[in-house]
Amino acid sequence: MSWSGIIAAYRPLLDVAAIEPITLLEGNTPLIPLPRLARALNLEGVDLRAKYEGLNPTGSFKDRGMTAAITQAVADGAKSVICASTGNTAASAAAYAARAELKCVVLIPQGKVAAGKLAGAIAYGAQVIAIQGSFDDGLRMVREISATGKIMLVNSINPYRIEGQKTSAFEICDALGSAPDWLCLPVGNAGNITAYWRGFKQYHAIGKVTNRPRMLGVQAAGSAPLVLGHAVDKPETIATAIRIGRPARGEEALMAKDESNGHILAVTDNEILEAWKMLAEIEGVWVEPASAAGVAGLRKAAQQHPADFTGKRIVCILTGHGLKDPDAVIQRAPAPVEIPAELHALEDAIGVSG
Amino acid sequence: MSWSGIIAAYRPLLDVAAIEPITLLEGNTPLIPLPRLARALNLEGVDLRAKYEGLNPTGSFKDRGMTAAITQAVADGAKSVICASTGNTAASAAAYAARAELKCVVLIPQGKVAAGKLAGAIAYGAQVIAIQGSFDDGLRMVREISATGKIMLVNSINPYRIEGQKTSAFEICDALGSAPDWLCLPVGNAGNITAYWRGFKQYHAIGKVTNRPRMLGVQAAGSAPLVLGHAVDKPETIATAIRIGRPARGEEALMAKDESNGHILAVTDNEILEAWKMLAEIEGVWVEPASAAGVAGLRKAAQQHPADFTGKRIVCILTGHGLKDPDAVIQRAPAPVEIPAELHALEDAIGVSG
Repeated sequence: MSWSGIIAAYRPLLDVAAIEPITLLEGNTPLIPLPRLARALNLEGVDLRAKYEGLNPTGSFKDRGMTAAITQAVADGAKSVICASTGNTAASAAAYAARAELKCVVLIPQGKVAAGKLAGAIAYGAQVIAIQGSFDDGLRMVREISATGKIMLVNSINPYRIEGQKTSAFEICDALGSAPDWLCLPVGNAGNITAYWRGFKQYHAIGKVTNRPRMLGVQAAGSAPLVLGHAVDKPETIATAIRIGRPARGEEALMAKDESNGHILAVTDNEILEAWKMLAEIEGVWVEPASAAGVAGLRKAAQQHPADFTGKRIVCILTGHGLKDPDAVIQRAPAPVEIPAELHALEDAIGVSG
Repeated sequence: MSWSGIIAAYRPLLDVAAIEPITLLEGNTPLIPLPRLARALNLEGVDLRAKYEGLNPTGSFKDRGMTAAITQAVADGAKSVICASTGNTAASAAAYAARAELKCVVLIPQGKVAAGKLAGAIAYGAQVIAIQGSFDDGLRMVREISATGKIMLVNSINPYRIEGQKTSAFEICDALGSAPDWLCLPVGNAGNITAYWRGFKQYHAIGKVTNRPRMLGVQAAGSAPLVLGHAVDKPETIATAIRIGRPARGEEALMAKDESNGHILAVTDNEILEAWKMLAEIEGVWVEPASAAGVAGLRKAAQQHPADFTGKRIVCILTGHGLKDPDAVIQRAPAPVEIPAELHALEDAIGVSG
């Protein structure tokens, strides 16, 4: 009855080597009801929930794919792995590589990775290299070096990553007894939307559920190649986890949208920050900014096409924990009030004196 | 089959109001095997596991107690809650208060709270007040102001906090099919050791398990009132979460030690940091420094009394996620190497050129 990680839970449905999994018991994340947020967004009769992927072992959804990729790497005899990362992949790769006793190298874009993410990769013992370039430059470099066969690539172009990540779709269906009507999620490199859609299709195909969701993929306006229809050379957004101008799985994301009769749309940084604040202050769920893109996109789509959402069961994927990027809060908040350690000062500060 | 939080899971065993719980689906945290660490510590034949409490919704074990305390506060008609905190309690109180639509005030010792923790309390919308004093000063002040009846105290002297926190003992027993032989955990304000012992005793008393663990409580050497036998006026340690000189539940902690035939011992900051580094680099489990105290204490106790530990089943409680205190990593690591975005530079950096 104890949870043993996503490979043990769903092995017959996953294309991954049949060895003992390298696992941190990832997955099994909560599906948190958001009734107050649904009301605040005027989503009439909607059953709104968040799949809180920030509660995976390294604080983001990346762990689902990484248990599969690193397990496969061990089965294939790899001694070292490499990835380019905006931060979450780096931390996850480093943690699983540590557990597998593999060397791990991560490339991050210089000065563009949130503190909590960088600290993780370092803590888990990876070799962290900052490149004078973007995430997209890093992805090109790790593709090139892994093509030599000297080091294994664990970015989401590694097919086992997608295999692992699709298990979140299975968990959602298992929890609800069916697929939701809509699945809303941020889209950066587009590995996750690809994985969810594959998972829902698979569960449907084997008869575990009788329906499939419509997919609502959400990009940041300054980093929206799939909405614009062309690559973005200098992507910009506060949502660092989706600051990607050349998504590795862009074609598959568009296919998921089309096959599911869904949408891919863009939201501004301000819209992302509003959704982010509402999640934390109304529902007590703090995420990194990128994770709020799905909620911001839902809000926008429901304003444009309310009839498509009324009365529906909707799941938003919250990809990473707020702890990944504490500076996003600190930079926007006034410093705490300081008072002497005396009762009357406290009474004054909180307005209950007398 | 879906997890609905600790109150729903264990309601008949908890003394908390019978209303719909205020929950973020806390609990249900993984019990991660640590075979490599057991070998590295020369723990012969030991089945060593970590209860990774950093995967609760706000990133620490505090959420278990807070769902109970805030649910009770709502049942009792409270409109606002207050706590003193080294950081984790603040974030947890703020999150659950947000979900319950209560005002939340948190007192933190000025300049002594880790970034990830402070950011959380702010993000969840609490009123954060820094006092020119210690945690112990803060605890005195919130006791005084809550005694007026104008605001409800949710520190761990609130009895419902202990009721919620004891559910982790239930989960461990459910996962293992019995209580472990030893339970190792950090001791600061001593609420958690009190809660675990109460939980194990209760599960044993109702026949869910036939054994009870020995408790190994671990304090930081610079903040070890229960080891020294007297209060510490100026507690100091890198493990900020247990930097407490006057533990509110010190008597109960000593009773847990005596009743369980256990120990309470102190470890140095260096010993804590060594255990912290081993957890991350060997097992891929990154925690805040205080959380490693249990492992450091186990290491020390097993060196002193090896026969007590050989062949045993041992669980270490990892109270908070590494993301709570990224500075603890950043301050100890060299900055990442920077290279141009070119393949040959990467090959040189990782030593696979040619």
